[in-house]
Amino acid sequence: MATEYISLKNLRFLMHDVHDVAYFTKNFDHYKQHDPEMFDIMLDTAKQIGDKELHPFYQTMDRKHVPDIFDGVTKVHPQIPNIVKAMAESGWTRAIVPEEYGGMQLPSMVRVAGEFIFQAANNGAMFYSELTTGAAKLIQSFGSEELKAEYLEKMYDGEWLGTMALTEPDAGSSLSDLTTTATPQDDGSFKITGQKIFISAGDNDFSENVIHLLLARIDGAPSGTKGISLFVVPKYRKDAKGELVDNDVIPAGVYHKMGQKAAPAMHLIFGEKENCHGYLVGEPNKGLKYMFQLMNSARIAVGVMGASISSAAYYASLQYAKERKQGRKIDAKNVHEPQIAIIEHADVKRMLMYQKAIMEGSMSLVFEASRSFELSKVGDGEEREHHQLLLDLLTPVVKTYPSEEGIKSVSTGIQCFGGYGYTEDFPLEQMLRDIRITSIYEGTTGIQSMDLLGRKVVMKGGKAAMAYFQEVNKTVEEAFKYEALKPYAKLLKKEMEQLQQVTMHLTGKAMQGEIELFLADANLYMELFGLIAIAWQWLKQGVEAQKQIDQGNAAGDDLNFLQSKIHTMKFFFHYEVPRTKGLAQRLQDDEVLTVGFENMLV
Amino acid sequence: MATEYISLKNLRFLMHDVHDVAYFTKNFDHYKQHDPEMFDIMLDTAKQIGDKELHPFYQTMDRKHVPDIFDGVTKVHPQIPNIVKAMAESGWTRAIVPEEYGGMQLPSMVRVAGEFIFQAANNGAMFYSELTTGAAKLIQSFGSEELKAEYLEKMYDGEWLGTMALTEPDAGSSLSDLTTTATPQDDGSFKITGQKIFISAGDNDFSENVIHLLLARIDGAPSGTKGISLFVVPKYRKDAKGELVDNDVIPAGVYHKMGQKAAPAMHLIFGEKENCHGYLVGEPNKGLKYMFQLMNSARIAVGVMGASISSAAYYASLQYAKERKQGRKIDAKNVHEPQIAIIEHADVKRMLMYQKAIMEGSMSLVFEASRSFELSKVGDGEEREHHQLLLDLLTPVVKTYPSEEGIKSVSTGIQCFGGYGYTEDFPLEQMLRDIRITSIYEGTTGIQSMDLLGRKVVMKGGKAAMAYFQEVNKTVEEAFKYEALKPYAKLLKKEMEQLQQVTMHLTGKAMQGEIELFLADANLYMELFGLIAIAWQWLKQGVEAQKQIDQGNAAGDDLNFLQSKIHTMKFFFHYEVPRTKGLAQRLQDDEVLTVGFENMLV
Repeated sequence: MATEYISLKNLRFLMHDVHDVAYFTKNFDHYKQHDPEMFDIMLDTAKQIGDKELHPFYQTMDRKHVPDIFDGVTKVHPQIPNIVKAMAESGWTRAIVPEEYGGMQLPSMVRVAGEFIFQAANNGAMFYSELTTGAAKLIQSFGSEELKAEYLEKMYDGEWLGTMALTEPDAGSSLSDLTTTATPQDDGSFKITGQKIFISAGDNDFSENVIHLLLARIDGAPSGTKGISLFVVPKYRKDAKGELVDNDVIPAGVYHKMGQKAAPAMHLIFGEKENCHGYLVGEPNKGLKYMFQLMNSARIAVGVMGASISSAAYYASLQYAKERKQGRKIDAKNVHEPQIAIIEHADVKRMLMYQKAIMEGSMSLVFEASRSFELSKVGDGEEREHHQLLLDLLTPVVKTYPSEEGIKSVSTGIQCFGGYGYTEDFPLEQMLRDIRITSIYEGTTGIQSMDLLGRKVVMKGGKAAMAYFQEVNKTVEEAFKYEALKPYAKLLKKEMEQLQQVTMHLTGKAMQGEIELFLADANLYMELFGLIAIAWQWLKQGVEAQKQIDQGNAAGDDLNFLQSKIHTMKFFFHYEVPRTKGLAQRLQDDEVLTVGFENMLV
Repeated sequence: MATEYISLKNLRFLMHDVHDVAYFTKNFDHYKQHDPEMFDIMLDTAKQIGDKELHPFYQTMDRKHVPDIFDGVTKVHPQIPNIVKAMAESGWTRAIVPEEYGGMQLPSMVRVAGEFIFQAANNGAMFYSELTTGAAKLIQSFGSEELKAEYLEKMYDGEWLGTMALTEPDAGSSLSDLTTTATPQDDGSFKITGQKIFISAGDNDFSENVIHLLLARIDGAPSGTKGISLFVVPKYRKDAKGELVDNDVIPAGVYHKMGQKAAPAMHLIFGEKENCHGYLVGEPNKGLKYMFQLMNSARIAVGVMGASISSAAYYASLQYAKERKQGRKIDAKNVHEPQIAIIEHADVKRMLMYQKAIMEGSMSLVFEASRSFELSKVGDGEEREHHQLLLDLLTPVVKTYPSEEGIKSVSTGIQCFGGYGYTEDFPLEQMLRDIRITSIYEGTTGIQSMDLLGRKVVMKGGKAAMAYFQEVNKTVEEAFKYEALKPYAKLLKKEMEQLQQVTMHLTGKAMQGEIELFLADANLYMELFGLIAIAWQWLKQGVEAQKQIDQGNAAGDDLNFLQSKIHTMKFFFHYEVPRTKGLAQRLQDDEVLTVGFENMLV
């Protein structure tokens, strides 16, 4: 098994140099207690946790103690509780929690950097801890003081674990169709009845309690999304004496998945014995709005997951390519010479460079979104609005690009290993099985693409798109200052013009009321948009690297690292960016082939 | 589990109408005993075997009785022997074997059509039978009369099973480095010593014998590929009395693979006790040349496998998309209306159409190659040479396109299922695990791409490429006769011009002696070449469909089938062909990024 899964040097470069985490500690009282140098120490300790508690269990969790229900109890791998404990004790579960709730109140970029480490070390093992943090945050944001008092501490401490319970058998992508019901009781609670499926980390055999953040319809509520409310539904509720009693949440099954086997995706039945109580969070019928806070974070978390698995796959591939000897240079076929390391073959280098470009580009985009997330909360009026728009626009892209391209990237990693990549002797086949889910989680690529084109690009009269173009333009302007970057600045400028053209062409259909046509190829629009967003992130990294190179202080490995950033940027522009050509052509071609025509599928 | 995995109607359309199997029965004595209508009956019986012996065991073979070694015995799924028997008894193992060896002497297109059925039904289960046929064919082509007498009947009868034993721990893509040795013995046999890995179906617990067609170096042979000889190495050899005795071939391990679990990939040790005898096939030092007969068939067989798994995935996705209700039309969001089948969503239709276009395009290309294979044997002088050139050129493409694009196509199928696609409740996740190997088997995509650009395109002064351009041009000319096809004929013509331009640009580098640069992006050249080859196959299918529509005899489902061919052709031209733009751009862009620069990979 490869020993490396992440580069701390790269995380530091992205967090400090490219995305300037110090901007927060310098300019906002909210973070004034922090010193950016401390963030590096946090990442070092995160890496230690990864090395000790997570990574050594990556392959075994895929094969042994795979979660399942035995005699009604959901058994998980025995290392999972240790991981949950380590996350709570090291403070990572409270990393961005405000001080008033005992949190560290860090800029979210630091948490994201930590997530990259943990997910790259062992993505499937992180569900319990991460979903708990997300669920607790929902209560913290929208719950009553009573709910906060009862749940927050226990959850942030990792004693009670949380889930998000949305999907039902007939309500997956179409959440408006969910049917789980909530009937008001005299004591202010609600009786919950219904079934939820695909609930990640939906139950376990080690935590004192499991707290489901569940969407349901209060009796008589409007149909559709306007009648959905959010509830806290614990596995064990407190009775009148304050003692924990069974709350009629039954683990009905564990889906057997292709990958991410460490975390069970569960089928849960609520209120089969009509004895399941839930507690309303916030106001009735506002549940979906609340849930979108968690959903949006979860979408960014999926981007982190995609990039992290790609990271682990890249470093494993790189190590193998350096060690594995096979063949000779194409123009030097003397069989008496020893074989060379496969990294010397151009094609293998292309595959590795591709992996690196996808992965580091994805990571940079996640940091970008994380920065906007932060500024949408703490920035001043205009800055705040600007970054809220950017965040809204980027969220579906951050969810999708690292997933879709990450799948390809990990698959390319398998190819570097040849036949060995297809076997359990190396971790790549598991990584491909793991990452394959990312384009489905938290809204499939189809859903994200309709969100991007159908909502985000056009919302508020295109204000978010304008904010985005403005932001990319800033980077282009910066890049024009460096001779070596000028050709790439020019390229990105041209690509942005093409993207605008395509966008106009498509929104033209919407304005004519042709909504189905407008969105029919939204997936391809997403692909185009994502490619350019990553080109932007590469130019941004290129600017920073060139600046540091020009300053002349870097030498040795540090200089090589900066040069490799420039090289990978070039690779992305020469190998990936040309793909926009075909996409733009299709998106501006009006031949209708997928609206109607069901009978053509035989 | 989906009940459909292949369309006989489509196979018949491709075999009879597009690729004109009757051309053989009409024009060549070799096939004069056959009536093309009989071929349909053969496919019907093949489908019955698929339905009864293969498909019902597809998922269980992935999970139960996965082959492994127990007390030195390689145990396989108990249905495997039944499948081997069914293949032999139904005559499929002898489908293209000449009558003199008891075969049916069918055109290979018929065998290919049968293969599509079997592989689509249960790809992993077919290894034992198929490798045996390939191994027997090697003996039949190059072995002595003695070897033929001893092995052929037993092998074609499925009593003795065969393997191809090439790969060694340090000789995978680089076969010239293999080190297994053969020491001449007084009795004319050779003592074999060495290890082979990744030997598919390398051993079993049910056949009377296992016959390895093995590459080794005779003591003192030249190094490199010029010193490799081919041997028959049985698991049990005949002693002086004609009795079978152990031949010192030890099953040392079974690789645990991501997919295709029904067939063990094995590590075998030959001659650990210095008691392993092998029998030379043909002349010494010509082994690699002989093996390429099997290798080339195996490469086409991998193309069949890719297209077949894509077929099973498509029909499963299609069925699910028709049954699964979720959401409403984008412009009709009344939640009081019932949900619609997901096939009605444009994005789902795009994904299904994509799967269909990849799969039926791939199948057509395989038939094309199979036709050339046949004509390279039985055609008259000029025709024979023309088709040998075409076959040589197309073989790496037939191996690669259905593999690489098939992987994407099956992954797209998972996406149609949403979260369910990631679970064992549906067969798609297994299909993705199964098909992932195809881009590695029998020479990775990297190796195929270098073969295409570095050998096939330039061989004999570009004669194969010329033959290919000529062949495509014929289809373009045909298509120009139909008003509805003219735009697509024009498009393909333009694409061919661009391909020629790119080819000239690249071969220009070769002529300047820049061999490494010439081949650095061979993979992208393969992608470009493959896209256009499939566009050709779609235009060819379009011509046939349009012709039949114009004849006016088709109605109902038959007419709809033909119209769906035209529609899918259009889809391929509008959605897939534009991808050539980006590829052509990169291939004509001289920025060097992957020759040298190992230190940029950090």
